[in-house]
Amino acid sequence: MENRAEFRRRIRGVQDYLSEKNIGALTVSSEKNLAYLFGVGTGRAVVTEDSCVLWVREVYLGVYASLFERAPYSVRVYRPQAVERYVRRLAPARMAFEDLPCMQLKVLKRKFGVGRVVVVDVVERLRMVKSPYEVSMLRASASIAKVGLRRAHEVVAEGVRELDAVAEIEAAIRRAGSETPPFEGGMILAGGAHGADIHARPSTRKIGRGLVVVDLGARFAGYHSDLSRTLSVGALTRAERVVLEAVASIRDESVDRLCVGVKASEVAAYAEKRIEGLGYHFHHALGHGVGLDIHEKPSLSPQSKDVLTEGMVFTIEPGIYVPGRFGVRFEDTIHLTARGPKNLTESP
Amino acid sequence: MENRAEFRRRIRGVQDYLSEKNIGALTVSSEKNLAYLFGVGTGRAVVTEDSCVLWVREVYLGVYASLFERAPYSVRVYRPQAVERYVRRLAPARMAFEDLPCMQLKVLKRKFGVGRVVVVDVVERLRMVKSPYEVSMLRASASIAKVGLRRAHEVVAEGVRELDAVAEIEAAIRRAGSETPPFEGGMILAGGAHGADIHARPSTRKIGRGLVVVDLGARFAGYHSDLSRTLSVGALTRAERVVLEAVASIRDESVDRLCVGVKASEVAAYAEKRIEGLGYHFHHALGHGVGLDIHEKPSLSPQSKDVLTEGMVFTIEPGIYVPGRFGVRFEDTIHLTARGPKNLTESP
Repeated sequence: MENRAEFRRRIRGVQDYLSEKNIGALTVSSEKNLAYLFGVGTGRAVVTEDSCVLWVREVYLGVYASLFERAPYSVRVYRPQAVERYVRRLAPARMAFEDLPCMQLKVLKRKFGVGRVVVVDVVERLRMVKSPYEVSMLRASASIAKVGLRRAHEVVAEGVRELDAVAEIEAAIRRAGSETPPFEGGMILAGGAHGADIHARPSTRKIGRGLVVVDLGARFAGYHSDLSRTLSVGALTRAERVVLEAVASIRDESVDRLCVGVKASEVAAYAEKRIEGLGYHFHHALGHGVGLDIHEKPSLSPQSKDVLTEGMVFTIEPGIYVPGRFGVRFEDTIHLTARGPKNLTESP
Repeated sequence: MENRAEFRRRIRGVQDYLSEKNIGALTVSSEKNLAYLFGVGTGRAVVTEDSCVLWVREVYLGVYASLFERAPYSVRVYRPQAVERYVRRLAPARMAFEDLPCMQLKVLKRKFGVGRVVVVDVVERLRMVKSPYEVSMLRASASIAKVGLRRAHEVVAEGVRELDAVAEIEAAIRRAGSETPPFEGGMILAGGAHGADIHARPSTRKIGRGLVVVDLGARFAGYHSDLSRTLSVGALTRAERVVLEAVASIRDESVDRLCVGVKASEVAAYAEKRIEGLGYHFHHALGHGVGLDIHEKPSLSPQSKDVLTEGMVFTIEPGIYVPGRFGVRFEDTIHLTARGPKNLTESP
């Protein structure tokens, strides 16, 4: 668990932003932002330049007693109208919200009686740069994912049903300590033509000769990991071999281009150009931040405005998908340091 | 897979709504609403009173070729600006959106050049009432969940690590054909005092004597299932036994109150009153719709405005949580028919 100083630093980051932007108060209610600022993924909080209050249901006072005892913020029991009354008393000239669904924002605006509102992503932006504590959790999460990858190498074989292989791999990931199965909807394991469907779900079909896209991860202390490999089953065709080697190489070349200060869009455009040079389209972004969410900021796409900075952790995942035939993706989770990229999911 | 008539009926439902509300066009981009209307959880669609167009990335034309061949809507290849140009040409006086995050809505409004916009939940409301096809998929999904429950009865025992039990149960659910692990973050298996934490994650701690909350489900053909049981390990204390029996009984009494035309809030208020009569608070809603999303409309809470109608499928899940000691929850997925409730997750 993060220590008191870490939570204080994060909350201070929000408060500095509010002060700089002249925003009276920010309300936080999304699970991951609450977890980041307070260590509890439930409740509702109001942060101002010089105060920070978290409301949680009574049942959580006991569950999180040891955390709340040393928390650098106030904890109150959630009662109907408690947050509304608090904000109405503050009466901020300008109030900030997370990027909520419109209807929810409309209701809150009315309940809080606030006029000028702004939608901000300050917490998501703070979350982009990981502390040493966070990197160690991400590394632990990545080592669980690697246990899953090793199991995948053992169980992926011709004639095995995709879901039987997945059952074994996901069970290995859980036994190794993952708090959740990979990602939100489980791992991807897609053989042959199904590898060309980016949204493929494992099914009861049997793995055949050819390429199998395996995309998996883990969650440890709230932090995710994400890696993909494309495994070969039996002899490959020439086309399969050429694409397999090309994508692995584009992954390496993209990682080599990572350094502090480079634009995410530049690295993404490089990979896109390489893939197009081979006669294919690149159907998704080159990468995404990884942390409390499996997909978070920064975005590594040709349209991204993010600049890569020290402490960011994100994926690099080029892929080529040949409809009706096969797909290839290689993906690693990278920690960007002052001395360059460190691969958290490098194969053993 | 749904047949052409089923998709046509769903799209017609949206078109009738647009016509009735005098809305020129609706844009659909959320995964589950796309899946419901078009059978493809990706892309962007624009529906008007008398037209329906879906844009998907080129790579999906091949993946979904057989679906698109007989689709009762037009399919076009997604190109930058294609949807924007289409909407600008339509120039609807009033345009409807799903309940998107505010920033996204703001960007779309500008891109489409539309003035008057409304946020609607018409697709989510259509999704509340399940067709016979959908009920059969929900039933198949529930029978996979029951395989998981049977495995839970086999593996939950004193001294077993929670994550080892979870690995076995989730693997059984995958082998039985579930497209995803249970829910979005995996199943819940929480023993003793951890059972009192509604958000508990299984961990490496060992199961001890007492109560163990097991909450699991499956996904089949896109449709979810959801059930909870509270298992006993060794001898129970008197307090544990009393609460266990009470919650099971409140589940049964709540199900008995279900009939076409009853208000969801009434049933929820009944359960809440029963729990409060025992000296506890009820910390969550009594139930939620189950379908393409694990949590969808209707809501069974005392604040709900939903009326239960024929064809709805939802959970009934009373729980009592005693901080620092134990938790108890029983949950079934119910299909409401003209002749009353049918329990899809009844234990064998």
